[in-house]
Amino acid sequence: MAAMKVHGYPLSTATQRVLACLYEKDVEFQFVNVDMIAGEHKSPNFLPLNPFGQVPAFEEGDLKLFESRATTHYIAHEYADKETQLLLPGSNKTMAVFQLWKEVEAHQFDPPSTKLVFELRYKPHFGMTTDAAVVEEYEDKLAKVLDVYEARLAESKYLACDHFTLDDLNHLPTVQYLLGSSAKKMFDSRPHVSAWVADITARPAWSKVMGMLKQ
Amino acid sequence: MAAMKVHGYPLSTATQRVLACLYEKDVEFQFVNVDMIAGEHKSPNFLPLNPFGQVPAFEEGDLKLFESRATTHYIAHEYADKETQLLLPGSNKTMAVFQLWKEVEAHQFDPPSTKLVFELRYKPHFGMTTDAAVVEEYEDKLAKVLDVYEARLAESKYLACDHFTLDDLNHLPTVQYLLGSSAKKMFDSRPHVSAWVADITARPAWSKVMGMLKQ
Repeated sequence: MAAMKVHGYPLSTATQRVLACLYEKDVEFQFVNVDMIAGEHKSPNFLPLNPFGQVPAFEEGDLKLFESRATTHYIAHEYADKETQLLLPGSNKTMAVFQLWKEVEAHQFDPPSTKLVFELRYKPHFGMTTDAAVVEEYEDKLAKVLDVYEARLAESKYLACDHFTLDDLNHLPTVQYLLGSSAKKMFDSRPHVSAWVADITARPAWSKVMGMLKQ
Repeated sequence: MAAMKVHGYPLSTATQRVLACLYEKDVEFQFVNVDMIAGEHKSPNFLPLNPFGQVPAFEEGDLKLFESRATTHYIAHEYADKETQLLLPGSNKTMAVFQLWKEVEAHQFDPPSTKLVFELRYKPHFGMTTDAAVVEEYEDKLAKVLDVYEARLAESKYLACDHFTLDDLNHLPTVQYLLGSSAKKMFDSRPHVSAWVADITARPAWSKVMGMLKQ
């Protein structure tokens, strides 16, 4: 029996973030599908696992976690010595750079990206109409963020340092969704961002997450 | 000469977050006022300190940081042994709980709170009109978050554990602004949230931040 359990929904970006981390670490886990269409994430059975009624929820023995970035943080620390090194160990100053780009993903990149994923991918998928004005507004916001990324990635192969870390990994789900939308042009027009996107989406662990979507 | 420099604007919640942390640690620093009304945060002099053109920016020797939560994280680690213990040291599982509530503040509490602070405090301050429909929408969102906090704070004195940590501190600026608005009722109606709010806003370090606003 797998020691770890992920309760999630394969289309959810937060679920994909945790799965990508588990596959990078090559640790055994059990995936429990939460039927969001049926509202299972708001059911009395699920709320003790995540009181906000969101996926994913994570369990390992007595430890119950939610919030995808807290979960990837735990997995990266608990399995620090296994497979891909997703952290940037070192002095407090070194770790501060890792933490900085972790926060940049969460507070600068994610808000406009999530909005665009909703408009450009989820809405068409669920038969709703994309709002062109919202797309324009959030593409403008994301463009400013990607300009900062272009400058950063011109001086550093990955966001925190010269190896792939959680700071990069946390981007994968939204980046992948945007690649399949008209927003792809925003990556393509920035050479360092484009190379970084190609690199991180080609990782075998990420291919395994994408493979789950096809099942 | 102070080793640390904070470039910020005293009315900004992100600036206040970093100042609260520095006062808890009782470390010497220099405050450099960034005149946001004059657009100084978007000027060519400021952008090398924070490429997103936001306050605060932080400097200590060669280290340049931005993103308030990355900055408080660094200060709490670098000065871990000085004054208030803002972390929750322990096993990876213990630290995961600390990380969980850190992410809850950032992703659950902060988005509706920041929206309400803008509508209920900044807009009147700058002569704009509060949008009642937006207030209602985001009060509903915040209410759901505070219900989760009420349950958590019934079993734990502070969010992560039985002592005040960064997870609580990161809330202070938005909590304080909301206390001075009609949204205060949302804290008052939840006894454990209300006791927690009274406790964290009464901290001497926080009074020092509030004192800077009066200057």
